[in-house]
Amino acid sequence: MGTTLSHPVLRHKHLLGIADLSREDIATILDAADGMREISRRRIKKVPTLRGLTVVNYFAEPSTRTRISFELAEKRLSADSVNISVAGSSASKGETLLDTMRNIQAMKPDVIVVRHGSSGVPHLLARHVEASIINAGDGTHEHPTQALLDAYTIRDVKGKLEGLKVLICGDIAHSRVARSNALLLTKVGAKVTFFGPRTMLPPQVEKAFDVRVATGRLADAVGWADVIMMLRIQRERQGASLYPSDREYAEVFGLTAKVLARAKKDAIVMHPGPVNRGVEISPEVADSERSLILDQVENGVAVRMAVLYLLCGAPAMEG
Amino acid sequence: MGTTLSHPVLRHKHLLGIADLSREDIATILDAADGMREISRRRIKKVPTLRGLTVVNYFAEPSTRTRISFELAEKRLSADSVNISVAGSSASKGETLLDTMRNIQAMKPDVIVVRHGSSGVPHLLARHVEASIINAGDGTHEHPTQALLDAYTIRDVKGKLEGLKVLICGDIAHSRVARSNALLLTKVGAKVTFFGPRTMLPPQVEKAFDVRVATGRLADAVGWADVIMMLRIQRERQGASLYPSDREYAEVFGLTAKVLARAKKDAIVMHPGPVNRGVEISPEVADSERSLILDQVENGVAVRMAVLYLLCGAPAMEG
Amino acid sequence: MGTTLSHPVLRHKHLLGIADLSREDIATILDAADGMREISRRRIKKVPTLRGLTVVNYFAEPSTRTRISFELAEKRLSADSVNISVAGSSASKGETLLDTMRNIQAMKPDVIVVRHGSSGVPHLLARHVEASIINAGDGTHEHPTQALLDAYTIRDVKGKLEGLKVLICGDIAHSRVARSNALLLTKVGAKVTFFGPRTMLPPQVEKAFDVRVATGRLADAVGWADVIMMLRIQRERQGASLYPSDREYAEVFGLTAKVLARAKKDAIVMHPGPVNRGVEISPEVADSERSLILDQVENGVAVRMAVLYLLCGAPAMEG
Repeated sequence: MGTTLSHPVLRHKHLLGIADLSREDIATILDAADGMREISRRRIKKVPTLRGLTVVNYFAEPSTRTRISFELAEKRLSADSVNISVAGSSASKGETLLDTMRNIQAMKPDVIVVRHGSSGVPHLLARHVEASIINAGDGTHEHPTQALLDAYTIRDVKGKLEGLKVLICGDIAHSRVARSNALLLTKVGAKVTFFGPRTMLPPQVEKAFDVRVATGRLADAVGWADVIMMLRIQRERQGASLYPSDREYAEVFGLTAKVLARAKKDAIVMHPGPVNRGVEISPEVADSERSLILDQVENGVAVRMAVLYLLCGAPAMEG
Repeated sequence: MGTTLSHPVLRHKHLLGIADLSREDIATILDAADGMREISRRRIKKVPTLRGLTVVNYFAEPSTRTRISFELAEKRLSADSVNISVAGSSASKGETLLDTMRNIQAMKPDVIVVRHGSSGVPHLLARHVEASIINAGDGTHEHPTQALLDAYTIRDVKGKLEGLKVLICGDIAHSRVARSNALLLTKVGAKVTFFGPRTMLPPQVEKAFDVRVATGRLADAVGWADVIMMLRIQRERQGASLYPSDREYAEVFGLTAKVLARAKKDAIVMHPGPVNRGVEISPEVADSERSLILDQVENGVAVRMAVLYLLCGAPAMEG
Repeated sequence: MGTTLSHPVLRHKHLLGIADLSREDIATILDAADGMREISRRRIKKVPTLRGLTVVNYFAEPSTRTRISFELAEKRLSADSVNISVAGSSASKGETLLDTMRNIQAMKPDVIVVRHGSSGVPHLLARHVEASIINAGDGTHEHPTQALLDAYTIRDVKGKLEGLKVLICGDIAHSRVARSNALLLTKVGAKVTFFGPRTMLPPQVEKAFDVRVATGRLADAVGWADVIMMLRIQRERQGASLYPSDREYAEVFGLTAKVLARAKKDAIVMHPGPVNRGVEISPEVADSERSLILDQVENGVAVRMAVLYLLCGAPAMEG
């Protein structure tokens, strides 16, 4: 679908999660992102596509890169955007989230971008407001634009997604990035292995996702992979109980040059950021030519522009 | 005034309070809001009216809906706007408010929107800066754009304001919303009754406003009204001393379906938000067809666009 | 250089400090600011010069006036700008500053405006990112746009800079404003004297800057000056140890009407703000006709527009 049309079509009103997308939807978004990335590489990084449309960025968890990435995507498409962060919102006045959102809806936004610490919030909103909802990360559930930008980045370097072997490493149990990536990559025919300490692997994860699971030492797992996707150890979320210390975590599960030497020569390294240097990834790996961390960031703006464009501009939308 | 002109005229430089407005001024603003609301209902919600003008939003109290409402009003009129909130302002460096405002003025804003916890701050600023000042709520004094959007909403549904009976219910003594509404509604010929617990009614209020006062149980008061305007119990401002508990307040003074059954069949329900569900208003009433809460929010953007337009574009201004 | 060209040229990619600028560079910026100030004085305060370019304002120290000044400068030049303040940034997630900046860079900003509490941060960034860096104040090191706006203001009133006698008064040792002003003013041929309590004068300061040093009572020092530039006592940074009390500081080092009476009749008074009224400057002096404090603020927007324009639009850039 969409490949022979001059106007690409996404048969969705919202982007709530990768779970809702077909393989064709994913291709439509990634294809549209190609043109969007080109815009950001020009001197004049702005097109009038969404002029006069309103986007509300509602961030109920701290975030720099995701908020800025969306905000730049919106501005480069000429949308009017306003930011709401939880500090300073009516949350402190005891209003329910749904009331806040119904109020925002009454101001006629076309899109609401939502980040929230509770899983399922974007889905709840999609049932109660008229605007298109984009999930910018909900609890431990999904982070679909992250998975889309990761897929875009892999496809950009490897030329394809199908058949590739992707090792996702770290705290799988708490990672919405891992979940969205596993859903996307298996849909497009890539092979996914979750790797991590036993305490960070959810029980029976293979039944929920079409993935393999590995544990042990990272050095023994990397040889299989075309793509090594490191997750962030989210120290600000966890108690210290899941692993004894940063140093010990790094020794067994961190991606160092020594570990990377055991990977395929053309295996690429990814990380959603922000990086804990010296914990899940060593500085020399993070800064190496095999690291695509900054490409992911660049592509994030492009993918978010593509999603905004497709949700706002699609001639047919089915919700 | 203004009804036969193609360019409506507001003979004021500032919007400090309803107290300063004539009946004709109010009509001019509400009439202009009609066209503005239509803009927000289009796909392309933007007109070039205030292009190149600068609006500063100075919010020294937390607010989501009012700030967002003004910000969207400004963007839909193509103004350039910047936000200042007290956290992060020079307030922490010991500068006086007037110095802060004189500094802002030196950067040549056309309009400064001010919310402040102290009554009279917008009036003080109007005497010391050249920009047009819009009062977005000052202490327990006035909140004129709220009263204007409420009047717009009533007129939109009832077709008129004159002669209507409006019951304003709750903590009258601390409510700038009640004050501004009472001033506006009595000016345009509506009849206003303040209703609330004795502890929340200011002494001799009938002498300050042309209103009646009622107390007792809400159920006994609603039968009179064409419009039932509930106020927010501002739990974040008060000690608990004015009423014993949320449950007991709700029982006597809350608007429930049972209470509403004693109102006129066509009486409408309003609330300035954010709502304390189950305290001053029950969820079933807040979400009922008779509730205009979300219409108020939509109309708020339109009324603020109208005020910005009239203050910036009026051919004659007298200050 | 630049005086006979229709397109002014600044042979720099960054504005890191006055130390890097030649006398000609300074003239180029001040000349460009003339046209920019005229834009802010129009009703339509906006030109399309930087349309489609992206500016990131990264403020890791609290600031109202400098952030707003840059933000208005950017908007009046039609740039797209996004703000990052440290509260809410990835700083709380343990990311290094360089990683944050490399991430921002990956989103393709044309300019990053940086304020940071550590001296040298803008220089570090300039070595690691591709965007133009503008130093908006780094530690106790430099604040180049402040010195440029001060020079612009003096030149605007006095018609020249060369040969003027400038007395800079206060906490010299901790003041990036003093440092940048001393560097600029001596480059353009003005004579500078640093005046302050002995505890606030850095040792051997005359060897670092081409300035004289005076101490004692301010009343005895002002007679020499054409320009009296008062510094802010930064109470939020210091312990109380550098001076015994505000009252005692004011008595010896504060600029009062009585002290000013001993200055030349046409000596002008400046202050970078925010002002501590009654400490380093008395209210009657701050508000007098000889005070240029608000002119400095107005000119700040113009100078920042000029710097943005020259860094983004210069046909030749050498880094």
